[in-house]
Amino acid sequence: MLLRVLRATRPLLASRSPFSTARPKTVFSGIQPTGIPHLGNYLGALKNWVELQNSASADDTLIYSVVGLHAFTIPPGDPDSLRQSKLDAAASLIAIGIDPARCILFHQDEVPEHAELAWILNCLTPVGRLRRMTTWKAKLATVKNATSLDDVDETDLSLGLFAYPVLQAADVLLYKATHVPVGEDQLQHIELMRDIASTFNGRYSPPKTPFFPVPEAVAPSATKRIRALRDPEHKMSKSSPSANSRILLTDSPESITSKIRSAVTDSTRHLTYEPETRPGVANLMDILSACTGETIDDVVRRMDGKGHSDLKAATAEAVIAMWQKPREEFERVRSDEEELRRVMWGGAERAREIASRTLAETKRLIGLA
Amino acid sequence: MLLRVLRATRPLLASRSPFSTARPKTVFSGIQPTGIPHLGNYLGALKNWVELQNSASADDTLIYSVVGLHAFTIPPGDPDSLRQSKLDAAASLIAIGIDPARCILFHQDEVPEHAELAWILNCLTPVGRLRRMTTWKAKLATVKNATSLDDVDETDLSLGLFAYPVLQAADVLLYKATHVPVGEDQLQHIELMRDIASTFNGRYSPPKTPFFPVPEAVAPSATKRIRALRDPEHKMSKSSPSANSRILLTDSPESITSKIRSAVTDSTRHLTYEPETRPGVANLMDILSACTGETIDDVVRRMDGKGHSDLKAATAEAVIAMWQKPREEFERVRSDEEELRRVMWGGAERAREIASRTLAETKRLIGLA
Repeated sequence: MLLRVLRATRPLLASRSPFSTARPKTVFSGIQPTGIPHLGNYLGALKNWVELQNSASADDTLIYSVVGLHAFTIPPGDPDSLRQSKLDAAASLIAIGIDPARCILFHQDEVPEHAELAWILNCLTPVGRLRRMTTWKAKLATVKNATSLDDVDETDLSLGLFAYPVLQAADVLLYKATHVPVGEDQLQHIELMRDIASTFNGRYSPPKTPFFPVPEAVAPSATKRIRALRDPEHKMSKSSPSANSRILLTDSPESITSKIRSAVTDSTRHLTYEPETRPGVANLMDILSACTGETIDDVVRRMDGKGHSDLKAATAEAVIAMWQKPREEFERVRSDEEELRRVMWGGAERAREIASRTLAETKRLIGLA
Repeated sequence: MLLRVLRATRPLLASRSPFSTARPKTVFSGIQPTGIPHLGNYLGALKNWVELQNSASADDTLIYSVVGLHAFTIPPGDPDSLRQSKLDAAASLIAIGIDPARCILFHQDEVPEHAELAWILNCLTPVGRLRRMTTWKAKLATVKNATSLDDVDETDLSLGLFAYPVLQAADVLLYKATHVPVGEDQLQHIELMRDIASTFNGRYSPPKTPFFPVPEAVAPSATKRIRALRDPEHKMSKSSPSANSRILLTDSPESITSKIRSAVTDSTRHLTYEPETRPGVANLMDILSACTGETIDDVVRRMDGKGHSDLKAATAEAVIAMWQKPREEFERVRSDEEELRRVMWGGAERAREIASRTLAETKRLIGLA
């Protein structure tokens, strides 16, 4: 099992132990419907969803969601784009190997219990606890192109952006998830949901039978932080200024080759892996290693004595090979919107079976029912 | 029609005009499930719900809700009390004359669309706009027994308390309500919901066909601000230190007589109506006038030459007479919990017919569906 359990209080220092002892496991993770995933999304997170699925036991529950309600925390694109992006995200997950028969794959906004539980959890979460989150200020800074967090006026923030870590806690706790695959930048959100779960349990659970499992963060060992091709100081992102900085799941082989050929590297001729001083070259090696399954040492050895254009050609070839089938699968799945909607709706029905039970129990415990 | 429309920007200066020109009207109002209503709740708000009902046209829609989700914005009592309070509130409304066949009477927490729309509206509401609300700080000050707003540390607040004006906006907008009966202290919340409706309309409505009506505040002319019997400097409240400060719908005639007999007045013998300098006496006159329908002048004339004990006796008699039938009705309705739940569930189903349509349309407009 290619997993390590993160202790939120000791970020990423965790041992390579597999899942914690709790069995059966319930894994929850979500992505925002921001369109076609790029290589950074895939190697940084989504590939691990598939690995989690493929290494899970039969009695584990895997719940993957396109979290549409989170799309409004920063001003979203126009409604038509969002409608398309929701379908794009769903089709992408199926294309990369998420199996709707094996996992519960669904649109969060089709399950009303998320917002209901979020409201109840709002009432257990101190405002001051959310103020200390750095993510919301960082997000606004990105939106506003501010150079420093100090330039950001928090009063302009929407309540949705401020409150979204609580909705995220509801997303997870609604399924009594035990494990949440996340990146390092989300660890503070896992700490928050752990605190909220503990607060609820302390206040409302019968003694010694905590109602919500306190979820654990899981960082699959294969996670790679991929950088923008044109600007390797920054991570690959949908909001990079240059579209050539990111490779999309739907890019043609020609487009992939061209984007990688124009990737920013440096003028040192010999190829070495030095992420701090040579981020452009190291980024290509990271991509190559992640795509082929080679170690970085293997990659460095294979590239010994070769030049930048050789590295770029090898990397492009590896990305094209890795994504050939998913790209074809995406086109197939995405072209039948009716069937795609039906599949996602089926997932929402299965999600609701769990979610409605948890919410009904929650309401009984707090006295609403 | 005993109504005046308030312009939120010109609080309580409004003309005595009836409802605005929009027809048919939809009225929404809610009360928290804080138990059996007291005389302040009744004369300050609930009596007007009945008047609105009785003076509405056949094509008006009246929606009255026990807003259970709001009960957690300050730490609530234990779950069992809340369960009872929800039923008490529902039975009280029926007892005072709200007719479930004429109005949509329901428990807000049985209609999931409230929380869902609230989340969407969260994303349209700037944090700074909510910071300027005075109600949340005042509420926390009450809970903490702070003497000044400056003593209140806002970081202790729950996000629920901070966010509840947005849930309130969702409560109203979900039914496309045109009119909201409120007291003066809630006018800033009406202004917020008007702003949110306008923001949504500007961003998402087709041109010239605003999706949400911008709701108007309505202060029924019969509203009385009733004061605590033992502490007439403050308004009658569930949180008054002395239970003798408030008269409950379920109080026996003996209890009503005894509480009014022990009301704090003053040592001036002659009876005059001077709310500033003689709040205890004026409060009794306000109650007497509200119960009998006499004007204050009538009351002062009737009490001319009489003493405090005469005023108290007349007031007790008037309260007992006004509440005799509602009290009997409360006992009858409250004693059959199964039927009461059935009635409220029927109301929730009717509410959902409207709410689910509004939410589905909202989701289409913003691109979630």
